[in-house]
Amino acid sequence: MEQLFVIKIGGNIIDDPGKLESFLTAFASIEGHKILVHGGGKVATTIGNKLGIESNYVNGRRITDANTLDLVTMVYGGLINKKIAAALQSKNCNAIGLTGADGNIIQANKRPVKDIDYGFAGDVKQSGVNTTVLQSLLQAGLTPVLAPLTHDGNGSMLNTNADTIAQETAKAMANTYSVQLIYCFEKKGLLLDVDNDESVLQQVNTESYADLKNKGIISSGMIPKLDNAFEAIQQHVARVTIGHADDLHKLISGKAGTQIQ
Amino acid sequence: MEQLFVIKIGGNIIDDPGKLESFLTAFASIEGHKILVHGGGKVATTIGNKLGIESNYVNGRRITDANTLDLVTMVYGGLINKKIAAALQSKNCNAIGLTGADGNIIQANKRPVKDIDYGFAGDVKQSGVNTTVLQSLLQAGLTPVLAPLTHDGNGSMLNTNADTIAQETAKAMANTYSVQLIYCFEKKGLLLDVDNDESVLQQVNTESYADLKNKGIISSGMIPKLDNAFEAIQQHVARVTIGHADDLHKLISGKAGTQIQ
Repeated sequence: MEQLFVIKIGGNIIDDPGKLESFLTAFASIEGHKILVHGGGKVATTIGNKLGIESNYVNGRRITDANTLDLVTMVYGGLINKKIAAALQSKNCNAIGLTGADGNIIQANKRPVKDIDYGFAGDVKQSGVNTTVLQSLLQAGLTPVLAPLTHDGNGSMLNTNADTIAQETAKAMANTYSVQLIYCFEKKGLLLDVDNDESVLQQVNTESYADLKNKGIISSGMIPKLDNAFEAIQQHVARVTIGHADDLHKLISGKAGTQIQ
Repeated sequence: MEQLFVIKIGGNIIDDPGKLESFLTAFASIEGHKILVHGGGKVATTIGNKLGIESNYVNGRRITDANTLDLVTMVYGGLINKKIAAALQSKNCNAIGLTGADGNIIQANKRPVKDIDYGFAGDVKQSGVNTTVLQSLLQAGLTPVLAPLTHDGNGSMLNTNADTIAQETAKAMANTYSVQLIYCFEKKGLLLDVDNDESVLQQVNTESYADLKNKGIISSGMIPKLDNAFEAIQQHVARVTIGHADDLHKLISGKAGTQIQ
């Protein structure tokens, strides 16, 4: 099987032009097939405030009303996605910026209303990732850059968490490629001591993860990311790593970050 | 040669959800290879006003300062482009929304400053249209939807007129496909009497065009569009038609609009 890297970056890198620039330089230099998934960042909130669109979060997820959907479609799918695409082009990486609507690459269902109405939030459909189109793009030498947006197949865009986009893409592509999924964030990995950046756990498996959760060592903010990562490894993604965006090449070669096993 | 339709729609359709919906239904039903190029529309101005970004036009062209570049990247490349892509997906057309940066499909030079500094306005480079990538996408069964944005190859997006994007794309693809270029706008074609919507000239060639210009029959607003259309026909585009967006299928079959010859 050919190798494919699926790499996710979050808002903290996107909000810092210098960090984004060096990350993209490192990303562009990865040889072979690769897909970049990016999150949102504060710029959506800043622009939303100017437009009079309030940000509402419940359990760390943005409530997406119609105005917010337009906002994130503009900012994630337009401003951020195209800045990244143009920057990668200048670094000899033939990036193609996409949302889930483009090429029908990721279809989602509008999240059903239970206790909370998340509005236009999308949960990726079963077999919702169009591996045929993604494969065509990769084989044409292109590097997909995915915004955290999906569509419902009925004409509406939907807002989908970037970690989820990365995980679903990695899982779906794992049938065809040996996929390495890397979540880049602002820490060097899973820390045994949240105040010590060097206390990185090199590996974590379901048992040690359960144990660390029981002991309260894993911060609540990390749990969705780790649950996400564990689901990927259980679904045939070859390697899943969590680590710092500054260490991209070390994360790829297994010399930094936390490996999920 | 296989046939390829390059179809351009302007802001007047984009600003009217009902018109856009019926246009996209007609567009989606065109069989074979097709590319849609869309303009901007008033929504960029509305959003720009809310963000405190003023619109400045000189000779019908927007002056693109850095803030305006971000604005049009968001609105053209994000909001409008993705709404069109999602709508076409719901009509069984596998649309892929792109700017010139995506897949490096259209490179441009920042317009040199002479009398006027147009800012981040892009003039398409010689051989700036990447026909290889566009052909890969078409052969994969995708329908490119192009926003009026290019990039300079050095990391910056640029703002480029949608008529120009359509013409340059049509010309470049004319080496590989039999290209039919259609400019849709709010009139039924080139009118002999601007107050009579039925006074459509069925055909116009360089001689009759010069004659009509001399007689002052062609409104000044039409001249850039017609110059644009004549350049396409002179560069091996098989057929160039100007007409009303409501008449898309008639324009394709040569039963409506003005043909440039």
